[in-house]
This record gives sequence, C-alpha cells and structure tokens, in this order.
Amino acid sequence: MRFFSAFLSSSFSIGYRLSSLRSPRHSYAFSRNSSLMAASEESLRQALAEKQSALENQGNVVRALKKDSNVAKLEIDAAIEALSSLKLEKTELERQLQAAVTGSGADGMNREAFRQAVVNTLERRLFYIPSFKIYRGVAGLYDYGPPGCAVKSNVLAFWRQHFVLEENMLEVDCPCVTPELVLKASGHVDKFTDLMVKDEKTGTCYRADHLVKDYCNEKLQKDLSISADMAATFKHVLATLDDLSAEELGAKIKEYGITAPDTKNPLSDPFPFNLMFQTSIGPSGLVPGYMRPETAQGIFVNFKDLYYYNGNKLPFAAAQIGQAFRNEISPRQGLLRVREFTLAEIEHFVDPEDKSHPKYSDVANLEFLMFPREEQMSGASAKKIPLGEAVSRGIVNNQTLGYFIGRVYLFLTCLGIDKDRLRFRQHLANEMAHYAADCWDAEIECSYGWIECVGIADRSAYDLRAHSEKSGVPLVAHEKFSEPREVEKLIITPVKKELGLAFKGNQKMVVEALEAMKEEEAMKMKADLESKGEVDFYVCTFGKSVSIKKSMVSISKEKKKEHQRVFTPSVIEPSFGVGRIIYCLYEHSFYTRQSKAGDEQLNVFRFPPLVAPIKCTVFPLVQNQQYEEVAKVISKSLTVAGISHKIDITGTSIGKRYARTDELGVPFAVTVDSTSSVTIRERDSKGQIRVNVEEAASVIKEVAEGLKTWEDMWTAFPHHSSATTDD
Amino acid sequence: MRFFSAFLSSSFSIGYRLSSLRSPRHSYAFSRNSSLMAASEESLRQALAEKQSALENQGNVVRALKKDSNVAKLEIDAAIEALSSLKLEKTELERQLQAAVTGSGADGMNREAFRQAVVNTLERRLFYIPSFKIYRGVAGLYDYGPPGCAVKSNVLAFWRQHFVLEENMLEVDCPCVTPELVLKASGHVDKFTDLMVKDEKTGTCYRADHLVKDYCNEKLQKDLSISADMAATFKHVLATLDDLSAEELGAKIKEYGITAPDTKNPLSDPFPFNLMFQTSIGPSGLVPGYMRPETAQGIFVNFKDLYYYNGNKLPFAAAQIGQAFRNEISPRQGLLRVREFTLAEIEHFVDPEDKSHPKYSDVANLEFLMFPREEQMSGASAKKIPLGEAVSRGIVNNQTLGYFIGRVYLFLTCLGIDKDRLRFRQHLANEMAHYAADCWDAEIECSYGWIECVGIADRSAYDLRAHSEKSGVPLVAHEKFSEPREVEKLIITPVKKELGLAFKGNQKMVVEALEAMKEEEAMKMKADLESKGEVDFYVCTFGKSVSIKKSMVSISKEKKKEHQRVFTPSVIEPSFGVGRIIYCLYEHSFYTRQSKAGDEQLNVFRFPPLVAPIKCTVFPLVQNQQYEEVAKVISKSLTVAGISHKIDITGTSIGKRYARTDELGVPFAVTVDSTSSVTIRERDSKGQIRVNVEEAASVIKEVAEGLKTWEDMWTAFPHHSSATTDD
Repeated sequence: MRFFSAFLSSSFSIGYRLSSLRSPRHSYAFSRNSSLMAASEESLRQALAEKQSALENQGNVVRALKKDSNVAKLEIDAAIEALSSLKLEKTELERQLQAAVTGSGADGMNREAFRQAVVNTLERRLFYIPSFKIYRGVAGLYDYGPPGCAVKSNVLAFWRQHFVLEENMLEVDCPCVTPELVLKASGHVDKFTDLMVKDEKTGTCYRADHLVKDYCNEKLQKDLSISADMAATFKHVLATLDDLSAEELGAKIKEYGITAPDTKNPLSDPFPFNLMFQTSIGPSGLVPGYMRPETAQGIFVNFKDLYYYNGNKLPFAAAQIGQAFRNEISPRQGLLRVREFTLAEIEHFVDPEDKSHPKYSDVANLEFLMFPREEQMSGASAKKIPLGEAVSRGIVNNQTLGYFIGRVYLFLTCLGIDKDRLRFRQHLANEMAHYAADCWDAEIECSYGWIECVGIADRSAYDLRAHSEKSGVPLVAHEKFSEPREVEKLIITPVKKELGLAFKGNQKMVVEALEAMKEEEAMKMKADLESKGEVDFYVCTFGKSVSIKKSMVSISKEKKKEHQRVFTPSVIEPSFGVGRIIYCLYEHSFYTRQSKAGDEQLNVFRFPPLVAPIKCTVFPLVQNQQYEEVAKVISKSLTVAGISHKIDITGTSIGKRYARTDELGVPFAVTVDSTSSVTIRERDSKGQIRVNVEEAASVIKEVAEGLKTWEDMWTAFPHHSSATTDD
Repeated sequence: MRFFSAFLSSSFSIGYRLSSLRSPRHSYAFSRNSSLMAASEESLRQALAEKQSALENQGNVVRALKKDSNVAKLEIDAAIEALSSLKLEKTELERQLQAAVTGSGADGMNREAFRQAVVNTLERRLFYIPSFKIYRGVAGLYDYGPPGCAVKSNVLAFWRQHFVLEENMLEVDCPCVTPELVLKASGHVDKFTDLMVKDEKTGTCYRADHLVKDYCNEKLQKDLSISADMAATFKHVLATLDDLSAEELGAKIKEYGITAPDTKNPLSDPFPFNLMFQTSIGPSGLVPGYMRPETAQGIFVNFKDLYYYNGNKLPFAAAQIGQAFRNEISPRQGLLRVREFTLAEIEHFVDPEDKSHPKYSDVANLEFLMFPREEQMSGASAKKIPLGEAVSRGIVNNQTLGYFIGRVYLFLTCLGIDKDRLRFRQHLANEMAHYAADCWDAEIECSYGWIECVGIADRSAYDLRAHSEKSGVPLVAHEKFSEPREVEKLIITPVKKELGLAFKGNQKMVVEALEAMKEEEAMKMKADLESKGEVDFYVCTFGKSVSIKKSMVSISKEKKKEHQRVFTPSVIEPSFGVGRIIYCLYEHSFYTRQSKAGDEQLNVFRFPPLVAPIKCTVFPLVQNQQYEEVAKVISKSLTVAGISHKIDITGTSIGKRYARTDELGVPFAVTVDSTSSVTIRERDSKGQIRVNVEEAASVIKEVAEGLKTWEDMWTAFPHHSSATTDD
C-alpha cells in the first residue's frame, strides 16, 4: 500500500513516518520462520502437481486394464489399489499445503481460531467495544471498556516513566484540530493518500491494493492447483504491492478481472483519496482544517520555543501522547487498522555532525532479533545480533538511533511482548524517504502476521526545514565557537542593471538562478567568463539557456570570521502505535488451561502486574459478615496504597471467581478465609501464600509495583494448600 | 449566552450539561463580595451625581459673587476655595467609583495587571503556547508546553485516584469522531448553537451576546457619568443575557446602535450557528460525523454493556477523560474559552427511587461556600453551609448529588484552589433543563470573575431515554423482587376493525392517541362510554376531535404478577473542565516577592507537590566535578524512585537558579555543597534542612508524595543557614 502515492512517482517525498498506516507486510507468511515455510510450501506445490499427474496416469492405466478382457481381476484390483493410495497421498499433500499456506501448524489451534478466542474474550470482558454499538457501530472505531482503558492507561504511564522521565524529555500536548497551512507544509495535504476504486454502479469505495491483495491471497490459500510458478508470481505481487502506481494497480485489477466484492459490478480506475478527516475552523467557513494524522507536527512547529526552554542546547527530545485520525477507506483487521488511535511520539533533535548518545553503552549489550535490509533482500530471516555490533558495523546508522532501538526493545518486553515474536526490521531502500538516514520498525508477530508497532526513523532535517520554509521562521540551532573561525564564503553578485537590459521581464528568473549556483558551478562560470567573456547558462525556471556576459555578474570568494555555526538539527523519531502494541500484547498474553473439573477451557491473560488492569481482587471465601468486614478493611488499605483492585462478595464458588479474574489478567487474589490471616494467590502458578490481614495490602503493593517478585514472596511466606485452591 | 437557544423558546430541552460552554456569569462583579461591592458602587454613583450638582451650584455662586462688585475679595476667595474642595471631593469619588467598577482594590495590583503578570509567566515558561504560533496561530487553540503538560498529567492522575479508583468507577475511552446519528439523538445536531451576527459588508462573524455584553461593560466601567438607574439597567441586561432570544438580542443591538467592532459596519440579525466541528466518515461522503462536543455520550451509548459488566447492579459510575471540541464563533478569555479541551466526566447511574449514597457520611460534615438559588434571587451572597445541612434541608436535592459536591470540593482544594474563592452555585430555574432534578456548578473566582469549572447535575433519565428511543435498544435496569408483586395495570385495547370503518386512513392516528392515554383520562373515558355510549376525543396528531363509540375501544384494569421492576436509571453527572481548573489553579498559586537585593519582583507558583510539574531540582552549588558527581547520583536515585526532577549544572548563581525554579512552582531544591551532605530548600518558606547524600532522594520522595509534610522534615533534620541561601 502507499500512503504517499505521489511520492512514489516524484522526486519529492515526505516519507514514511506513519508506517503504522501501512498494511502489515508479509501477511501471507505466518510462520515464525517464513523463508523455511516458503520453501516447504513450494516443494509441496511441486509434489502436489507431480502426484496429480501420477494420479492421472494411474487412472489411464486402470481404464486400459479394464478394457482389456485378457487381464486378470487380480491385476486390475492391484492397479485400483495403487490408484486409491495415490488419491490418499494427494489428499494428504493437499492437507499439508493447506496447513502451510494458512499456517495451522503443529500447535493444533490454528491462527484464525486462536484470534477468535482472544477477540471473543476481549469483547465479552469489555476490553474493547465496537463504538456506538447500539447504533450498529462505525467501521474502524472502537471504545476501550473498563479493563482495556486501565491497560491503556498503564501502558502510557509506563511509557512516560520509561521514556519521558528517564530521558528528561519535554512533553507537550497540542490540539488535534490543525489548520491546513501546517499540514500543507508537512506534505500531508498533497500526499497523505490511499488509492481507491469505486463500484461504478453503487459508488461503494474500496482500497485498490486490498482488492489485489485479497485476490492473490485467495489464489494462494484456496486454489491448491496453481503451479509453483504461479504461486511465486502472486507472492511477488503481494511483496511489491506498496510500490505499484495507480496505473499499475489498475492494470492488475483489469488483468485479474477483479470486480466489486459486494456486487460484482465493474470498478473505476484507482484514484487517490486523502486520508485526513477534514473540517472547518471558526464560523466563516474560510479556514480549512484537519484532524491531525499524527502528533509529530505539533512538536516541529514548537521547535524554537522548546530549544530555548532547553537552554539553547542540543540534543534534547520532545514527546507527545495523543489522538491521531485517519479516515481509512475500508478499515479491516479489527483493532490494528482504525480511524482514530493513540500515538506516542518522540522527536529527538541532534546535531547532524554528532549522533552519539551518552547512554548508548546502557543498551549496547542487548541482543535481539534484527532484520537488516541485506538479509531481507537475500531471502534470509531475522537473526539475533548484539545491538552494539549492529551499530559498530554500520547496519544501524548511528548511536542515537541504536539507543532508541534498544530502549524500544526494553519497553516492549517489559510490557510482556514475547521477545521471540519481536523483531526490528530495517526499511528497504524503496520504503524510505530520500532524505531519511535510516529507519527501523519494531514488528510484533501476531495472528495477522508481523505487524509494525513502532517506527524508529532518522528523518534528518526534513521536517524542520519544511516548516522553516513555509512559516518563514528559522527553525535552527546554533553552535557558538569558543573562538571565531575563518571561513571562505562564495559571493555571487548579479549586476541587475545589465541583466535587466538583457532579459527584461525574465530578469528575476535569471538572477535567482545565478544566486542559487553551488560553489563548483559558480567557480567554473567565473573561469569561463574570464577566459571567454560569455557563457551559456541554463535557467530551469525559464526552461532554456541564456547567454551570460562578464559584465552581468561578479563571482568571488571572501574570507569571513564566523562566531557560530547555524544549522538545522536532525531528528530521530520513535513513533508508537499504542493500540497496536496493546492488541499484540493481548495475543501474546493469552492462553487457556483446563478447569479443575476438566470440563472446560479457561482463558487467562498473563499480563505482568505493570500492565494488569486491576492488580488484585479481594474475595471473602464464603458469604459471612466477618469475612466481608476483613475484605473491606483490606480493600480500604489497598485504596490508600493506590492499588487498583476489586472486591467480590458474591456467593459464587471461589474457583469461578478465580476463573473470572484470570480472564481479566488480574495477577493476585486475596482470599479471606479467617479473620486473622488470608491467602494470596498468584494467577499463573496458582500458588498460594498465607499472610496476616495487616500485611496483605503491603505484600500486594510490593509485588504489584515490582519492588519484589512473586518468587520472593513464595520464599518469605508459608504456602497454603486446601480445599480453597482451585486445582 | 445560550447554547441551546432553541430550548429557550420551546418546551423541549437537552439541558445545560455543558455549562462550561456558557460565558462566566457575573463577570462584571469581580469583588469577593459582589453584593456588598454592588451596594457601594450604587451609592458612589449617587454621591458622584450629587457632588456634580453641588459643584455646578457652587460654580454659579462663584460666578455671581465675581459679577457683584460689592462683594469683598475675602468672600470670593472663600467661595473659590469651597469650589476647589468640591472638585477634589469629586475627583476622589470618581477614583473610588473607578476602583469599584474595575475592581482594583486595596491589594494595589489590579485584576488586569495581575492576570497579565500570570499570563506572561505562563507563556514565557511554556506552561502553554498559542498553537501553531510560527504560522501566527489559530484563535482558541493552545498547546501545553512541558511544565503545563506535567501539571495537566498530575491533575488527571489525581482525578483518577480521587474519583475512579476511590469509587471503583468503570473508566471508558471512546473516539472523538462521532456519527451524526448519536448526536442527533442527544440533541446536539439541532440545538448545540450560539447566536451569531455578521458584519454585513465583510462577513466577519461575532457572537451576538458578546457584543451586547461588551457594550454594557464598557458603559458601566468607563462612563462614570451614567446614573445609578442606567447602571442598574445595564447590569440587568448582563445578568439576563443568557435568557434573551435571537429577536431580543437583535433588538438590543439595534437599540444600543452596536456596529461591527472592527469596521463599524452594520450587523446582520442574530442567527444560530452550530458549534460542532463537522466532518465526514469514510470515503463516500455519505456518513456525516462530528468531533464530539463532550465525552458523556460515549458512556450513555455503552450503558447496557457497563451495567452488565457491573453484575447488573445499581448504582455504579462510569468515567471518561478525553478531548472535546467546540467550534467557538470568536474565542476570547485565553485559556478559559477554547476550541479543543480536555473534559473529565462521570456518569453515576442510580435508581431514581433511591438516591442515597453509602459514603455520604464521609462528606456530610464539610462546610464551604454555597450559593443556593434562593440566595441568588434575593441578592444575597454565597455563604458557608455544612453540606449535611444543605442536603437535609432539601437545598441539595439528594445524597448522591451532595456526595459528589463534597468530593469535588475536596478534589479542587487538594489541588490548591483557594477555598475562599470557590463556591458551589445552584442553577436558577431558568438555567436548568425541565427534566433535571438539580444542578450545581463549582465556580472558581479568578481575574475573569467567577468561572464555572465543574458542573454537577442530576439529569434524571433524560439521556438514556433519548438513546433508547433513537436506537431501539432499551437502556434500562431491572430490580428483581424477592417475591412476585401484584400490580394493577391499565389495559387499553382499540378495536381496529370498528376504528378502521369509522376513520379509514386516519385510523392509525386515532389508535395511537387512544393507546397513549394516561390512567385518569382512560378511566374517565371508560365511565363516559358506559354512561353515554359515545364521547368526543381530541386527537392531537390529527388536529381535531373525533367521536369514539363504546364498540371502538375496551378499557380495563387488570391485576398482574410482576417479578421485577424495569426502569430507566437516573444519572448524576459531575463534569470537569480540566483546562479551566488548571488556569484558575495558576492564578490561585501565583504570587510575587522581592529578590534578595530588593531590585526585582520574583514570580512564584505555590503548587502543592501533587500538582508541581517537577518535584525537585538538583544543583551543585558551584561548578565542580565532585559536586556534579554527587548531583548525578542523587538524580539517578530520584529517577529510580519515579520522582520527576531537573538537574542544573550551569554556573548561574544559586539565587538565580532558585528563582528560575520557583517560577516553575518546583517545591524542593537539593543543593550539593559537600560530598557527604546536601541541603534541601522548600520553595515558599525558603527554609533549608541538611540531610545526608544517601537520604536525599528518599526525603524528597516522602514530601513529594505527601507521605510526610515539610514541617515533619523541618522537625526531623538540622536546619541550614549560610551564604548559600537566597535571602
């Protein structure tokens, strides 16, 4: 998919900051080891084709034998048996191929079924709710219900602690309503588009690349008879879908005979649709505005003030958490592609000549899955590389970029993302904007494939330059020299009187072109003018060459003393799609286990306490006033300690109550079964310890806030095992 | 001002939830005791008028004496002296009246100057920044810069702790983009309007009520010659501005000869302008949507799921923090009236037949300024009333409403709002929607007057009913009876065959009207039909009466057993304008004090640690590697403890560094002046204690998190006084 399609066919680009906009890549390759899987899939297609032809041959053999009255029944029977066994073998191959392409592997539960189990639990327990459900909802808009809202708020609080506080970042909070001017400068007004096609009869809109993608996936997954060559072609189309122009996509749609999915009507040619929600600011209707498609612009336009606030010193980072909006053409993939979402973005401003980072050594020893450009091109898979090595070998462009990659890895794994299903994928050359120095996506594998959840890009000076130019306010940094430095400066002085006489109305274009000459070109012109007195000079705005005489321009080099260097800082931008991270976290945290009676599968979210929506529940074992009083006392202490919890005094069996809260991912349960001491149960181990009533809240606080681990508590307190346990 | 102007001239209303939309009331009365002030202003005007006429008389006397050649010079001189002293007295009266109307009281600094001092500090230190400043900004949009963002985040974290956690509320997080359907049901599409006038030549738009308000205020404050009667008239117009219809406002504009402020061109008649930002959802352009004007609707449409989540039990509360949007016609009053802002809203659902609250006794003893309806009508001022008394005397409608008023009081005063400049004002009958049971605003006094910052309303069942009706999904609660109850039900059965023969195409209207009869009317019809066999019946949808015969309808009362009661819950809604609270907090926290040298006024924000953007600074006393190392060690411990802080190793004088951070409201400063111990300074007292390096972070954590007070530390540690102090 493209979201700056114009860029792909022009030399200008605003780049791929919002990589979270793009479709998950490689969504057809679901296995943990996609290249291995691809190989086995190819050989299976080959084997299937061979088996099919063997089967046809054997069919002919059987028919021939049957026709021949000389052949013994025994012989015919043997041939039929061979035919049957070929049929069985073909069926088995088809099953294997089906498994390979849809990814239902050895783990027994296939991806779709797994996702359905997670999503059912999430919806039933109100982690999220399709927005405006009673009005039949709106595609791509979701509410976070109580536990989802708590998870989100925990993730954001940790983000603030891990990034903003730890790095002393300058956090800002800018409005969502943004005037057109700003988004014109950033390039969004012109280039933030997706290609769309319309049902020519009903006017229903579809994303052009989605239709082609669906067609290819359908062929690959459902039509087992296609040849290995055909399969390779479809895969190539899928892999290069992002690079196709409107014309190329249109051609594919025609070639495949794709029609409108709902009506089978013919489709229009693809055309760009701007993804921003448009509105109008103020009552006059004359000030167009948009709902921001990202939070970053709010930081860039404030650069000057923030730089001043930071004592006019680089490097520094600014951060923003907030809503962003994208009017998707046809949102799919549930919580992964939505029309309104929370972004958390960091803009780290550095001197382009010094991208070292003082805390780089803190992360240099980390080792995790990286997927550099070269590995992707050569068809290899992601592999573990020590971060320090990736930076020193130049795979990662610079220390600061490396530092943030490391910090993002720590952030995600602390939340509970499985480190074996997390990789950092470098952008390919064709994915990256021309000005970008380097770009890596943190991709998390879930049932939809590998999903980009964080983009970490070195965007060089692009954004600040764009706003400097459009606003006329220089967004630059200064480096004061300890003593003045002598520099040689090129001085080009067009002689306007002479130029005016010669070029009249076109004088201005010629003057500007002369002034814009780079050093080399100017010095050559100077030499030529001195030797020949006249030169041909191409004026691009004028579209032709003019003759420049010696009297028309003076070119020289002068030595000047400079007291400071003025430059546009580079920006390194980690950008987090909060909703996507949370969704992947749900999948990585979900598991099922048998109930005690063995009659049902119970759902569990293994959230770390940091993320868990509620840290603890308080249960009186049986309905009894004394126990309820104790439960209320503990609940009050927990409230004072700031620990979110829930008290459940219903008469439901303790096992059921545990199961209910396991499904919410609550890590600890306090069960009141006496007035002096209580048990504390840990969710995943189901182990229980016995503590005094007075200690209960502080024990919970320590494990919930990560000051101690459950293992510490397991060592420190007596264990409990009785009929009150749930297994 | 009106924001549901249609309501004011119709019997239907969606009410004043968004009281934060309305202009601050009584903004012409700035004194702490507005009625006293009003009295003194009136007598001053009276005295001034009398002085003026005495002056004219004396002038005549002097002129007459001068003409009369018989009069001794001594006598003339005495008369001139009397004239001069009258002039002086008049000047003094004018000064007093000017002070009374503009409020520059005995405190020396007048309101405008005070506001300017606060706002300058806030802008200079980036508490807030006009959004998109480099593009010359957009009226009514502001960014929170780093300290402002931290204050906001602290206020919201405390809100979550104080309300959501303490009351076990169900927090949700819904999108800002809202389909028209939902806001049609809530009434916003039709009624969320302000009256606007247009410059007839340039098309520039103004809020009609603002122009009238400005005219009246100008007259009252600048024209000291108007009579006390005239002044009273202008004050009446200001007080009733909210109640004026479009026609009445238009008439006032004509009467006063008000023209466009910028051009003096004539103005159009007032007409309504919808304040919602409109957009379009999806690519088709066929699904209109708006940016939500409040967060409450997201909760109402989820009622059914939330009720289920709460175990189908009442009462429970849901809460939401999020952005809301209002396309103001011409935003004024800086941070108080903006086009995008953060709301924090609670919807507490209760059984309308039982509005008691289990924790009511926790707040019943609070005593603070309340301004009941009666006091407002009688011209009295707000007075301290114990909350328990206000509820028991029926001034506050019910316990739950009273409970939230008390909790809001505690919330605001914990943040640092001055309790003497906070009052709870009850809505007057004409401010309240017809369905509302009661409504109170928490108003905070600042330089703009009394500003509504929190609205606390008992909205009865209005919102849930509106969405039930439009969506067709019943948003109701159930009360299961322990044993079935016998109830008498009215049964009205129209006989459609007879009605069809009699009324043909109009049958449906008659049937509906019959079915809609209330018990009394129906029983009267039954009696009349039995006695007369025929009755006249007015069908309002048909616009006339029809004759109903006995054969056309059967009316009876039947006894039925019911197992449960089904009802629409009432909702009690505290709604917080977060930005307004923060702005008032800035004003209440700001003060100035002389620098040590006595040569300048230093600015201080006396934020409590809970609110302070940074809890502490760390300063090496002088630039020195050893001290810097110690400072870094303390900084690291503070980061681990999660205490936001700033390290400043510049060589600036310690006094300057203290002053800089006082201006950010940083409550504590650690100054490193040895390698073994350091001093900790408290911002307001400027007192310093001496603590060991190892203890520093934990001491700061305890005072910053409110576990101990500064007084505790002052008692526990040795005091420090030396040249390092700043006074």
